[in-house]
Amino acid sequence: MTTINPFTKQILMTAGPTPVPPRVLAVMAEPVLYHRAPAGVALYASVLDRLRPIFRTQNDVLAFASSGSGAMDSAVANLVRPGTKVLACAAGKFGERWIELCEAYGAELVRYEPGWGTRLDAQEIARLLDAEPGIEVVFATLSETSTGIVHDVEAIAAVVRERGALLAIDAVSGLGAAQLEQDAWGVDVVVAGSQKALMIPPGLAFASVSQRALDAAAAKPGGRYYFDWVQTAKQQRKDPPNSPFTPPVTLLAALDVALGMIEEEGIENVWERHALLARATRAGAAALGLELYGDPDDRANVVTAIVLPDSIDGKQVPKILRDAYGITANGGQSQLAGKILRIAHCGYFGGFDILTSLSGLEMTLAQLGHPVEQGAGVGAAQRVFLEAGVPVATGSPA
Amino acid sequence: MTTINPFTKQILMTAGPTPVPPRVLAVMAEPVLYHRAPAGVALYASVLDRLRPIFRTQNDVLAFASSGSGAMDSAVANLVRPGTKVLACAAGKFGERWIELCEAYGAELVRYEPGWGTRLDAQEIARLLDAEPGIEVVFATLSETSTGIVHDVEAIAAVVRERGALLAIDAVSGLGAAQLEQDAWGVDVVVAGSQKALMIPPGLAFASVSQRALDAAAAKPGGRYYFDWVQTAKQQRKDPPNSPFTPPVTLLAALDVALGMIEEEGIENVWERHALLARATRAGAAALGLELYGDPDDRANVVTAIVLPDSIDGKQVPKILRDAYGITANGGQSQLAGKILRIAHCGYFGGFDILTSLSGLEMTLAQLGHPVEQGAGVGAAQRVFLEAGVPVATGSPA
Repeated sequence: MTTINPFTKQILMTAGPTPVPPRVLAVMAEPVLYHRAPAGVALYASVLDRLRPIFRTQNDVLAFASSGSGAMDSAVANLVRPGTKVLACAAGKFGERWIELCEAYGAELVRYEPGWGTRLDAQEIARLLDAEPGIEVVFATLSETSTGIVHDVEAIAAVVRERGALLAIDAVSGLGAAQLEQDAWGVDVVVAGSQKALMIPPGLAFASVSQRALDAAAAKPGGRYYFDWVQTAKQQRKDPPNSPFTPPVTLLAALDVALGMIEEEGIENVWERHALLARATRAGAAALGLELYGDPDDRANVVTAIVLPDSIDGKQVPKILRDAYGITANGGQSQLAGKILRIAHCGYFGGFDILTSLSGLEMTLAQLGHPVEQGAGVGAAQRVFLEAGVPVATGSPA
Repeated sequence: MTTINPFTKQILMTAGPTPVPPRVLAVMAEPVLYHRAPAGVALYASVLDRLRPIFRTQNDVLAFASSGSGAMDSAVANLVRPGTKVLACAAGKFGERWIELCEAYGAELVRYEPGWGTRLDAQEIARLLDAEPGIEVVFATLSETSTGIVHDVEAIAAVVRERGALLAIDAVSGLGAAQLEQDAWGVDVVVAGSQKALMIPPGLAFASVSQRALDAAAAKPGGRYYFDWVQTAKQQRKDPPNSPFTPPVTLLAALDVALGMIEEEGIENVWERHALLARATRAGAAALGLELYGDPDDRANVVTAIVLPDSIDGKQVPKILRDAYGITANGGQSQLAGKILRIAHCGYFGGFDILTSLSGLEMTLAQLGHPVEQGAGVGAAQRVFLEAGVPVATGSPA
């Protein structure tokens, strides 16, 4: 038996922070720009402009130095006062963050919690809105990172708009991975973060806010400052736009490069790439006889949650992947700890990343006493790529 | 007349973002760490531990992904509820930020505004506390970046502690540049940012919070989430510490390198270097016949605000420095626009940076029709360095 481990190269395969492309990393090593000098102002303006097509919106995309949860906080701080009646939808850990936020800000809270791994049902949301008059804001999730489910925001938006409430969507892991059409679908608020499909490190977050949502925030002044939408929009609407506070300039420089990469590939192609990677992952899991967690459909393009065999200690899977194979991957969170492995395909991911994740999983399962045919999952994923006509038919990130 | 400009190299000389050392920039180009993997957790723990000696505290130094204003917001969001009686001290733009924050959160606000450029008077703060019973929190500033004044926080802390109120200090630009002894002086809350004397880009901010302040926050729950101190302290106190939200991992990696540089130099030597750079800057200004703004004393070690001659268009000074000489420097803000030039010596600054700033200023004044003896300010600054025994007697950043 050898003591040499050929798998010591470290490979980041998590759903956030996600891998950052080399040319994005490189720009962060350049000298820092002063944000009020012309080059810094131009960078800020460029990023704000180039974000709109990613959100598919004409809105102001408000930028904050914060993690994605900061932008979620901004949505509640701007739209909720003690006693504001809201509906929070949660079918996983990040949906539950909306509940925690609404409670922290004293909302009169109606909860819709169909259970982790479930898809939110637009008709049930419609029923709750009809049964509970006076709901001003509905909070829901695009991609529920804890379960892999991507919710049908288009259908949810249709029933919420019809009933006049505002809709705020957590798209932190979804934006740029799963299709989202903010304006066409009529979503008032979309919240996102930098460290997922936008392919840069954490530290920048966004709230793309409709005029209707901005007006609602203006009608509830006070109780916030750093995350105030009204002030932020006022400053960003100046020509050139002005950042209310010192922005994280290295992350802005990184994002400008990353947005250029998304433009080169084309956002529809980016979505298609994610869809193809997800299909290959699902095929790989199936070939290994493994079930997917919950009830994913063909929207589940951000992260694939694979149920681990009952017969093994599931908490060992991410540990062995990391310690033996150099792969940092996500196990399950909270109630799913030890029960699932999440294979990410969110942002700067390509076909060989999926094959690597599946290879690592196959070897890890064997080590844990759940032998699978080595290469079977990988082969199934490869067949998906071949059937899709890769590399001819699809774009790929540079 | 030549058309060749030998001054096209771009030089960042602002008081925030400040120049970032090459070895700090380099680490940001390394692949991103997953914050929950052992290496990410170890990085987070290292940074939290190494910050304490910079704040001169045994407190929890709470870390937030935000700009410095976000950490200021956290202080008000955690200590102020509608009707909480507070005293806000403001003698410049950043002091006024405390006032705006207290108003946003509905405080019953007592203001102490002795005028821009003035040093806050601890005895007047004592008088106000005695005259206005029930003040729970006093907000003040260490280094007022807009004017260059560094306030006597030790004296302020003495009178505030004696009267039982909490004291929160904005040390965003001051920490690591001007002496601050949080525990010895009895300052409950010190707020700081990453992009000043900590020598990394913007996007990380800190609140070093005493147990007394944490208890006060716990007694005023709700109305906040992302910036909640109680939750953040609870997570950070775990072993190993846990980041409540995804932290800006590239900035943590940068900070770990920068803190190592500060440790190598020694925090007292860092303060001394700033003091020496400030003395040289003041000598340079005096040799050019220029006054300093306001009433700085030998604590004014972060940025030196030089009053520009009335006879010139002062707004042209930073513009010419930038366009003709490649130096990005700060003019005045708000009511001081066009009236002052601020020469920064905050963070990764050395003697030649000061000489460069003074050289640029001398040439710029000549171009604007206010001739000064070229080299006179530079020479005066050099004499300060020589008299101090440089390079023998002082440490210098690598």
